[in-house]
Amino acid sequence: MYKKVSVGKKILIANEEYALKNSQILAEQKKLCLNMISSPGSGKTTILVRTINELKGEIKIGVIEGDIQTEIDAERIKAAGAAAVQINTEGACHLLAAQVSGALERLDVGELDLIFIENVGNLVCPAAFELGEGGKVAVLSVVEGDDKPAKYPAIFAKSKALLINKIDLLEAAGVDFCMERMEADVRKLNKEIKIFPISAKSGEGMEEWYRWLKESVKVVKVG
Amino acid sequence: MYKKVSVGKKILIANEEYALKNSQILAEQKKLCLNMISSPGSGKTTILVRTINELKGEIKIGVIEGDIQTEIDAERIKAAGAAAVQINTEGACHLLAAQVSGALERLDVGELDLIFIENVGNLVCPAAFELGEGGKVAVLSVVEGDDKPAKYPAIFAKSKALLINKIDLLEAAGVDFCMERMEADVRKLNKEIKIFPISAKSGEGMEEWYRWLKESVKVVKVG
Repeated sequence: MYKKVSVGKKILIANEEYALKNSQILAEQKKLCLNMISSPGSGKTTILVRTINELKGEIKIGVIEGDIQTEIDAERIKAAGAAAVQINTEGACHLLAAQVSGALERLDVGELDLIFIENVGNLVCPAAFELGEGGKVAVLSVVEGDDKPAKYPAIFAKSKALLINKIDLLEAAGVDFCMERMEADVRKLNKEIKIFPISAKSGEGMEEWYRWLKESVKVVKVG
Repeated sequence: MYKKVSVGKKILIANEEYALKNSQILAEQKKLCLNMISSPGSGKTTILVRTINELKGEIKIGVIEGDIQTEIDAERIKAAGAAAVQINTEGACHLLAAQVSGALERLDVGELDLIFIENVGNLVCPAAFELGEGGKVAVLSVVEGDDKPAKYPAIFAKSKALLINKIDLLEAAGVDFCMERMEADVRKLNKEIKIFPISAKSGEGMEEWYRWLKESVKVVKVG
């Protein structure tokens, strides 16, 4: 007797094997790895660049950059002084664990405290593919609107932290974004999630995020 | 001898059959149908609501709304006075032509001049699935950054028109967005595309978009 497995499921199973392998490598070396997911232009790279600059000397950060095309983001990360490996998916809308596995081999993981994976800009598909990370971090910018958790629930349900970015624009231009409504919708999906309203541009609210990162790195290290 | 066809290709072929059927129905009835594609929160629904209000009495508009979950968008469209049919993809990151085929049956197409399909908020996947539309319209808001055409080229290469939305935020908050850089990158991908810098909120630049819509409806009607 054979079990019927759909092709979609087979792809997910193959991905999960690589994800398991990645998570074992990270666990053995006691490294925190965070998978950042958001729409294009929510500010993932800008958040990373500021975080790398501010935590220099405290935490050694490496970044795996996922983009459909270009090396723009890896170049920005390297300019900030962190190790970066670029993956170009050539059309694919999310990263796969096998790609991350290859990227981990190219990063000097032993030398790092924290590895960020910046996924392809897409609020939908990346949420379905585990990469072996220790946790997901969702980013939503206020200019995208407060109805996004209701409309795209998966990523908000699965993330350990949510960065609400571009709060400087909230005040400057009177964007229609009700923080209370958004938070209430997110809490319905995920009671444990940490929510950080920030501006990666002005730096507002970033201290709380840094504190959470340092604490999380420590927890994994002590293991 | 069998031709080898990958599963991904089979899905695309099944989709193309429905897309062809949709395009035939639209051609027979001489109706313009535009497939709007953007990231979540770029302003697709707000653009549609304003367009419906402004063109009331001139063009009869119907909307097929694609979302993963909720009927928020269809309710906004109906409140503006246009016919709307909501498709919930329940997790899928793009609309399929078969879903649009069902929605066209539920819309009173004969009574309309223009049918908009508002695709799921995703700058990547929807670009790969033809729905039988007469043309694609991409929406990019200035707060997403001017590097998006280089990083997500497919939708910019395939669209008839590009709406650069939220130009009110460009001036109000000094967003880092170089219109010239973005336009140059888009033109490398697509020489024919019409580019409309707009603010769906303030109404700035919308007249040109309305003119293009009215002209395009006329061209399809005269056939």
